Amino acid sequence: MTQPLAPGSVIGILGGGQLGRMLATAGAELGFDIHIFDPDRDCPAGRTATRVWSAPWDDNGAVQGFAARCDALTFEWENVPTSALDAAESRAAVRPGRKSLELTQDRLVEKSFIREAGCRTVEFAEINALPELVAAIERIGRPSILKTRRFGYDGKGQALIREDTDLASAWAEIGEKPAILEAFAPFERELSIVAARTQDAKIAAYPLAENRHAGGILRVTTAPADVSAELQANALQIAHAIGAGLDHVGVFAVELFEVAGELIVNEIAPRVHNSGHWTMDACVCSQFEQHMRAVAGWPLGSAEPHSACEMTNLIGADVEPWQELAAEKGARLHLYGKRTIRAGRKMGHINRIFPLGGQS
Amino acid sequence: MTQPLAPGSVIGILGGGQLGRMLATAGAELGFDIHIFDPDRDCPAGRTATRVWSAPWDDNGAVQGFAARCDALTFEWENVPTSALDAAESRAAVRPGRKSLELTQDRLVEKSFIREAGCRTVEFAEINALPELVAAIERIGRPSILKTRRFGYDGKGQALIREDTDLASAWAEIGEKPAILEAFAPFERELSIVAARTQDAKIAAYPLAENRHAGGILRVTTAPADVSAELQANALQIAHAIGAGLDHVGVFAVELFEVAGELIVNEIAPRVHNSGHWTMDACVCSQFEQHMRAVAGWPLGSAEPHSACEMTNLIGADVEPWQELAAEKGARLHLYGKRTIRAGRKMGHINRIFPLGGQS
Repeated sequence: MTQPLAPGSVIGILGGGQLGRMLATAGAELGFDIHIFDPDRDCPAGRTATRVWSAPWDDNGAVQGFAARCDALTFEWENVPTSALDAAESRAAVRPGRKSLELTQDRLVEKSFIREAGCRTVEFAEINALPELVAAIERIGRPSILKTRRFGYDGKGQALIREDTDLASAWAEIGEKPAILEAFAPFERELSIVAARTQDAKIAAYPLAENRHAGGILRVTTAPADVSAELQANALQIAHAIGAGLDHVGVFAVELFEVAGELIVNEIAPRVHNSGHWTMDACVCSQFEQHMRAVAGWPLGSAEPHSACEMTNLIGADVEPWQELAAEKGARLHLYGKRTIRAGRKMGHINRIFPLGGQS
Repeated sequence: MTQPLAPGSVIGILGGGQLGRMLATAGAELGFDIHIFDPDRDCPAGRTATRVWSAPWDDNGAVQGFAARCDALTFEWENVPTSALDAAESRAAVRPGRKSLELTQDRLVEKSFIREAGCRTVEFAEINALPELVAAIERIGRPSILKTRRFGYDGKGQALIREDTDLASAWAEIGEKPAILEAFAPFERELSIVAARTQDAKIAAYPLAENRHAGGILRVTTAPADVSAELQANALQIAHAIGAGLDHVGVFAVELFEVAGELIVNEIAPRVHNSGHWTMDACVCSQFEQHMRAVAGWPLGSAEPHSACEMTNLIGADVEPWQELAAEKGARLHLYGKRTIRAGRKMGHINRIFPLGGQS
């Protein structure tokens, strides 16, 4: 165990998007200086941070210079290039560590890890060529989903295989890259649990949240989810097993399917997560503050909500009626400072707050 | 009425202390870029803002350059030099306007204004020389308080006149500056109301808060204060009268004494106020967000609390046990990023959160 970082220390964040921005703000509330590394000097997080270090991801000297100035490092995005992480790690501790990234950057490795951690997943198969896909479909059946092993997010790099889908087309659609075939889970609900874990293995988990996706992108999170105490306890077990298996330090999220009253792990995000944005306005300690606490070696805050929340993502043109959104009472609008609206781009979110138990 | 500022606009803040820092963070959440003007490039607010403009307050050219880059301006501190405000106003609208400053920068002008607005104050007298003090004491009696008319805050520039106080010594103690003598209010409680007012005269007021001072500095705020609906309604009337009288745009605070069940106005702060820090964690829309909304011409958020709160200031060495403070559950620690601890210096605050109605 290292000593907790004193207020005034510098925490560096690799990546300057909206997650970095919300981490920067949360870190500043704890008295830290926040430095951001991002190729874009005008990135959203840089505009709320103490200093921006701007260079291409493959400029190892620049990454090292940044890291050398920081007392601890973290990242906002699990696809930070490995070379940049190597360069950063040579100068300061990166939290979470490499194990969290190695086990979650590749969907096949991730699914295998989840099973080894004692949690359930859908059936899956490794796919490296079309004949393997044909064989795997025999075993797993349709509908199923073909996904590239790496660098997929928000529904990108995926092909749904229905009864009438031509397998060669599906294989072409994902670019004939190393892939995983996953059985389609006939889920009743999509849930997620967001948890934080410290260097000394303490965990604080927020209650289960219920998520609705459209077009592969999260649209609405309702939290706490209306679930039984048993399901909540199962989710907590899953969070403990996965947190320990990753030896994770910081916040992570586990996306879950509820199938016939049981929880199946869909995927792990080794970072703060969109389905935890509700914690910003419904908990005393948000997921962003929890993450910065874990990175700094501080004790975790309480993950108990004081309110219920419905979080709605503002994607692309959703943000255009900002004047209406800003006028809603009992809601908090969060805008990410992105300069231009693009289809599918996360521009902000709105948290609508309710008394606990006062919903549904 | 001007149009509301679109997200991505630049809001400039004159002054980079902790109030500027919390304003900057709140403004960023709404998607604004925040520029700070402060003589200290390493000021607390600068480290959470998009850009810091650093020059002496009397460098009018620098102030003008800063202001020219901003779409709207505000200040964190009512004692911003008049010359700097003049320079800034020549380039962009400053909100609140000069009237709010002119009527509150001078205690004598302020007390007269409060009476004209139809609110009660203690008895007071203008003092420009020792014989005037002697005469005023005859009328107002002892105990009473002699205060410099300008540039007093946190108990500075004040002398308490007790039964045995030598008047010449008291006059010397405040530097023989233009002063006001105020009767000592035999108050049961110190309360305050924090409110925000828009350009089109809409007001949102937080519920009354109860304040405890020591050594002239606020120590603890409890909110909502345990008061009758009648007292709450009186406070709201006062906020409306004073907001309208100042033609204020933005947040302001009215410090009140409760004397025999009636409210007496002690003083007005034409800005976000320490006794409103509880709103950061007990309301969906904090006083800092309200202020930025008003400055930007946005509608105000809800001033309804979702929780009760006890806010404790961390002054000077109070912040040294930060590890203990950080470990408290159900509390949110706010540290201001000040580099050195000094006696009497506000280093941070901690908001302890309770269910509404669950206290006392």
